[in-house]
Amino acid sequence: MAETTPANPHGFTFNHTMLRIKDPEKSLEFYCGVLGMTLLRKVDVEAGEFSLYFLGFTGSEDEVPQDERAAAEYVFSRQGVLELTHNWGTEDEDGPVYHDGNSDPRGFGHIALDVPDLDKAVAHFDAHGVTFQKRPEDGMMKHIAFIKDPDGYWVEILDGRTMAGG
Amino acid sequence: MAETTPANPHGFTFNHTMLRIKDPEKSLEFYCGVLGMTLLRKVDVEAGEFSLYFLGFTGSEDEVPQDERAAAEYVFSRQGVLELTHNWGTEDEDGPVYHDGNSDPRGFGHIALDVPDLDKAVAHFDAHGVTFQKRPEDGMMKHIAFIKDPDGYWVEILDGRTMAGG
Repeated sequence: MAETTPANPHGFTFNHTMLRIKDPEKSLEFYCGVLGMTLLRKVDVEAGEFSLYFLGFTGSEDEVPQDERAAAEYVFSRQGVLELTHNWGTEDEDGPVYHDGNSDPRGFGHIALDVPDLDKAVAHFDAHGVTFQKRPEDGMMKHIAFIKDPDGYWVEILDGRTMAGG
Repeated sequence: MAETTPANPHGFTFNHTMLRIKDPEKSLEFYCGVLGMTLLRKVDVEAGEFSLYFLGFTGSEDEVPQDERAAAEYVFSRQGVLELTHNWGTEDEDGPVYHDGNSDPRGFGHIALDVPDLDKAVAHFDAHGVTFQKRPEDGMMKHIAFIKDPDGYWVEILDGRTMAGG
């Protein structure tokens, strides 16, 4: 493609991925408390009885602008944003509320994080009681792991510097 | 969170989102041909009879390194990558193969693209016969649209400079 058409002719950016979550308290503890993401923006939509949480890994504590307009542009123009949608009241339901996409009917598979050191990341997840879908030593692909978020969505853990074979 | 814990203490990056697709020919025509993404890497796994397509919006045609090791590190260390998984043979099945997550059982919602001009993007999609889930003029949220990819996955279209209200 790169030889016949200009790269990114329309100037689009892949901004975010949206997943529905049952309980924002548990999801924020996982994504922010354990994984280290920052809550960039929260939007409460009273008419629809839902809230949106926009998360991202930031480079510094003061990266998110204070000004409302600048903050919105920062969140929606950058890459690597995770939008979590909470329909109010689901946190009081019994058992899982949402489908992770990896059993029938299948579709969405996972999100993936690049980490600087896979072993250190695994030790960190173990220390925080994170559930593994696949530890590095399970199966053929020793260089990646899959953990589960509080709703059961799969999160792949990889080290970008060790992926040349796969 | 930003006041009490350092931003991104573990140095993780949100690298990619994986969706299963029925027919790579149709998906590449949509994501590369219409949206302008670049196929960064293709991995064929013969033992599992599937192929992985890693796509991203690139800044220039020569952004992807030629060297295998450097290319892998580029793909798996950057943000905003879309991984499409093709299980061989699904393209010959009748009707939809995968579930978009927006009807029961719900879970995954959508991916979202930031575009420099919403009206121009909509005109571009119309010119290419793209199916809309929601045109900008439909419903309350006039500043965003949703289109559908060949498998029916929703793709939100937004202009990051106009999102201060939502």
